[in-house]
Amino acid sequence: LKKGKLLKEGKAKKVFAAPDPEQVILEFKDDLSVSHGTKKKKFKGKGKINNEFSAYFFRYLENYQIPTHFVEKIDDQSMLVTNLEIIPIRVMVRNIATGSLKRRYDIEEGKVLEYPVIEHYLKNDKLEDALVNEYHCFAFGLSTPEEMRVINRMASKVNAILRSFFERRGLLLVDFQLEFGKKQGSLFVADEITPDTCRIWDRKSGKKFGADRFRNEMGNVLDSYKTMAERVLG
Amino acid sequence: LKKGKLLKEGKAKKVFAAPDPEQVILEFKDDLSVSHGTKKKKFKGKGKINNEFSAYFFRYLENYQIPTHFVEKIDDQSMLVTNLEIIPIRVMVRNIATGSLKRRYDIEEGKVLEYPVIEHYLKNDKLEDALVNEYHCFAFGLSTPEEMRVINRMASKVNAILRSFFERRGLLLVDFQLEFGKKQGSLFVADEITPDTCRIWDRKSGKKFGADRFRNEMGNVLDSYKTMAERVLG
Repeated sequence: LKKGKLLKEGKAKKVFAAPDPEQVILEFKDDLSVSHGTKKKKFKGKGKINNEFSAYFFRYLENYQIPTHFVEKIDDQSMLVTNLEIIPIRVMVRNIATGSLKRRYDIEEGKVLEYPVIEHYLKNDKLEDALVNEYHCFAFGLSTPEEMRVINRMASKVNAILRSFFERRGLLLVDFQLEFGKKQGSLFVADEITPDTCRIWDRKSGKKFGADRFRNEMGNVLDSYKTMAERVLG
Repeated sequence: LKKGKLLKEGKAKKVFAAPDPEQVILEFKDDLSVSHGTKKKKFKGKGKINNEFSAYFFRYLENYQIPTHFVEKIDDQSMLVTNLEIIPIRVMVRNIATGSLKRRYDIEEGKVLEYPVIEHYLKNDKLEDALVNEYHCFAFGLSTPEEMRVINRMASKVNAILRSFFERRGLLLVDFQLEFGKKQGSLFVADEITPDTCRIWDRKSGKKFGADRFRNEMGNVLDSYKTMAERVLG
């Protein structure tokens, strides 16, 4: 499968045209970007690992009747996906308080939330990915209330599925981000599911994996992606 | 009616016990507090005006089948209200972009929102009244999803009623805050409805009334309360 024109370059991925205009090709870059794009670095090999993670989790979710944009992996760093109209909202699902939730509401680090919290953020580095609610999304023309209901239901399901997946591997799914896209009135999980977009902690040791290690200058960033890949992808 | 023990003193009101324990007495203070309590001043006569406004609007809403905590006015600065369990969330309804909405999402001052926006804030000066969504409210034990649905429906109704009320007087209801309380499973509009908690602009001149004049150092704060009282209460 040959990559066509570069359609878009994001912080962690490039989007290329595919032979079929109903599809596009995602290429996972080695760049890691955190803190609203203010902090960036290249980690050689990350793109390949994230491609593997995403392919694995999209297939896994499809087995649970969660529609995703995934079609197939086409090379080490690339996958073919359905070309969707992306809803410009970052959906975050949280099980444990850390990061901006902890800071915004002055909650103790690591507190297990009594119920999972779903948050919606604008995809806008300049506005520091401002928190929005369903009324903002509707008034700003980002999504309809009906779409938000479906998105929240899907996000909640994905959380239940992934949480128990990680639990069985001795890992805590602290929080994760999703993006959604639509096509012919249906909603699909889009974007990626990777250690860039999920916070995972070891259940016993509390050890942290993924982008947080870079965000908080904890070192061994790429190693943690590799360890995670071994534990999760086998 | 005699005021009993001082039960609570807030930034703009005191709460006293009433002879009937199912009720309490609210006394409206002359203090005006803005910007999460960081800016305060006394405006002699404001308490009386706000008591009149609140009594007027609570009666007005009751005529439209909106349950409120209002029982009766008992003196210039005080009213008798039902003793409710207050839900610790500030509900804000916005029709026009200004203030924190404008800043948070970089919207043009004075832009008419395509659909009204309902926002929920923690009542917590230290956290600068952080924005929350219904998932936060539930996870933090502040309200149930069902309560939120009823609160949002009531807030939306109150907005429609007050907006057309102000419109008929050549005034724009830019945004306003509500609080809610519950008793025996039912929800009531509580707190106050005053120029402290509503942003009102003259439709033709754009002139601003109320607390914004103090917040933004525009002068003639108390005068604007008086003018508003003349135009609105007659």
